[in-house]
Amino acid sequence: MPQQDRAYATREAILRAAAEEFDRLGYDRTSLTAVLARAGLTKGAFYFHFPSKEAVAVALVERQSEFWAEVRESWRARGLDPLSALHGMFVESADRMAADVVLRAGVRLNADREIGYPGVPTSHVMWEKLVATYLAEAGERGDLLPGVDPDAVARTLCGATLGARLISSATTSCADFPDRVREVLRHVLPCVTAAGWKLSGSHKVPERLVEP
Amino acid sequence: MPQQDRAYATREAILRAAAEEFDRLGYDRTSLTAVLARAGLTKGAFYFHFPSKEAVAVALVERQSEFWAEVRESWRARGLDPLSALHGMFVESADRMAADVVLRAGVRLNADREIGYPGVPTSHVMWEKLVATYLAEAGERGDLLPGVDPDAVARTLCGATLGARLISSATTSCADFPDRVREVLRHVLPCVTAAGWKLSGSHKVPERLVEP
Repeated sequence: MPQQDRAYATREAILRAAAEEFDRLGYDRTSLTAVLARAGLTKGAFYFHFPSKEAVAVALVERQSEFWAEVRESWRARGLDPLSALHGMFVESADRMAADVVLRAGVRLNADREIGYPGVPTSHVMWEKLVATYLAEAGERGDLLPGVDPDAVARTLCGATLGARLISSATTSCADFPDRVREVLRHVLPCVTAAGWKLSGSHKVPERLVEP
Repeated sequence: MPQQDRAYATREAILRAAAEEFDRLGYDRTSLTAVLARAGLTKGAFYFHFPSKEAVAVALVERQSEFWAEVRESWRARGLDPLSALHGMFVESADRMAADVVLRAGVRLNADREIGYPGVPTSHVMWEKLVATYLAEAGERGDLLPGVDPDAVARTLCGATLGARLISSATTSCADFPDRVREVLRHVLPCVTAAGWKLSGSHKVPERLVEP
């Protein structure tokens, strides 16, 4: 393997090993020793790539941030109706989180830092606003029931997804996160969508408990 | 003040000062120094009542545990239909949490310990089971729509409440937690309840987005 490829592979191995520890234990309880043991690397190899545990955490948070920007852009670009795009975005996010420990660790690190202490949970507020924008657009098209408050639905969906992630993470390493997110959508969307709305796109149609 | 009353008052002052710090910062970042400064007490006075920071945290967790047992018992004893009892329990819990920092700190300490690391989040599982039991009873009475899965609804409600608490805690010290919990109920219950069900009890009827 050329030297540049080997360096890249080592950096990725560090990120992955650190992600596996951060994902399970959070930032404070993750030890560099455990990360090195998991990656099968020496301290020297580690410090060639990262100056500190914090630097690895920052890299993971940046990576998830880039990932979410791509997801948002890709659903925006599909030209679906807003509720279908929203649904697809939630389902894809849950599926990717369950499958990818590097993404999951970045999300956890970011959320633990933002949500554990008083302040503004910037990412959460950004998602609530984004979801509310999609819902407001759906309302303008007549896809929501009269009287539905897009902000209130956005708070409910985003809060429910956060809670689902935390429980799913503690109990199944997020293996059941996709099911939990689909349950949330199935138990909220029929309360707020107009009878005429139909889910479009490639994602499976959720079972509707209340037939339109 | 007799010595016994003074000792009781000091113990309560420590619990409250510690609760205010734990509620904001969590266990690890709360310093005993900050708690003492807040309570206006010396280390000597503190150690007369508690051997350690951990002992105060344990006392707060025990207190919230006793509180929830009372809430569950009181709603069970009212003889309401299961969905009304469930609704009342969620609303009362949110109102009490917003009003009582001692309760809130105990809940946070307990949840942070259970949910932050791999394992069984015992309290959350207990609540999910309790909520599922209420919902299953409602189903047997015909108060749920056909096809509604009590376990799935319980997961949705409990996850949504957990997420709502964390966001509300980070942004408003739980001041908007009562509103957020009512929003969750308003966006989920109409999806799962049968047309004939009506909320009973002393709590305000939620606005129903989908008229039965």
